[in-house]
Amino acid sequence: MELFSKYKKVYVYRLGHRRERDKRMTTHVGLVARAFGANGFILHGECDTKILEKLNKVLETWGGKEYFYMECDNEPLNFFKKWKTNGGEVIHLTMYGLPIHEVIDNIRKSRRPKLIVVGAGKVPGFVYENADYNVSVTTQPHSEVAALAIFLDRLYCGKELDISFKDAKLKVIPSPRGKRVIRVS
Amino acid sequence: MELFSKYKKVYVYRLGHRRERDKRMTTHVGLVARAFGANGFILHGECDTKILEKLNKVLETWGGKEYFYMECDNEPLNFFKKWKTNGGEVIHLTMYGLPIHEVIDNIRKSRRPKLIVVGAGKVPGFVYENADYNVSVTTQPHSEVAALAIFLDRLYCGKELDISFKDAKLKVIPSPRGKRVIRVS
Repeated sequence: MELFSKYKKVYVYRLGHRRERDKRMTTHVGLVARAFGANGFILHGECDTKILEKLNKVLETWGGKEYFYMECDNEPLNFFKKWKTNGGEVIHLTMYGLPIHEVIDNIRKSRRPKLIVVGAGKVPGFVYENADYNVSVTTQPHSEVAALAIFLDRLYCGKELDISFKDAKLKVIPSPRGKRVIRVS
Repeated sequence: MELFSKYKKVYVYRLGHRRERDKRMTTHVGLVARAFGANGFILHGECDTKILEKLNKVLETWGGKEYFYMECDNEPLNFFKKWKTNGGEVIHLTMYGLPIHEVIDNIRKSRRPKLIVVGAGKVPGFVYENADYNVSVTTQPHSEVAALAIFLDRLYCGKELDISFKDAKLKVIPSPRGKRVIRVS
């Protein structure tokens, strides 16, 4: 994971989670955050401990437990302001923002801690106002899960695709057919 | 959309959809298929017309109606075999497969019609056996929505991020803050 340490922190902030409606989307947002090299996951809205438990199970089995931080938050505006006061930048992924290829070089170069905000339902105006960047991954409606994956992929220049975790118990051996999984600890 | 026509067809096959559990994930798979330049979406499992209706609304408003094909199918093995008999190749996205960067050049070069298979629940063995490629986007558990987005992004070399549809009624004007949407037809 040394690859990713040049940005002190890249956290994903899941905004406006609704327990019933969003449970699987939010789980996938958390899984993508981990698998694509983010350092943590903040859950806003309903503090759904089942989501965090699911992510924790993945961390235990596939690694990242000592490395991937998770918490709930219920004051996004305060969180964003503190993040910025502490030298970080807030990046909101939205189909209405500036195209990712126009801004990603600046975002990558700044090396400031990055809080990547992805909304569930309608995103309130203060998020657009307080974000350092509103970034679009296409101007089409699709999925916050896809937008997050593409954003992290561009941030890390594709290197995250080879990600591995030292504390993993299981490891996949890539295979042209079928499943090969070995126990490594 | 001419950009993408050199592959006669790139279709996404959503395998094993379960109406209640997968409704939002499957919708996002369909939305990503459209927004990242695929030509169609095949829904297997429960033929959930609500999903197709939702996707249709997006096609009507944001474009692609004449171009993006959708149907239900309940015989995946037959479908794969017919696809291959007609010169196409079947690409199954799975964390157990070969790393995308090892196979994407061959897949891109072949210019054969591509059926990209993404599973919902447990994927049966015949899918691994009958796929021309089993492809992994990281060897970590994450999201079929993310895997599909990264796969199409690599297939189209990032050009899909500028996608637009001639028959769109609404168009987003990228903006550093807030939302700018214009009516174009």
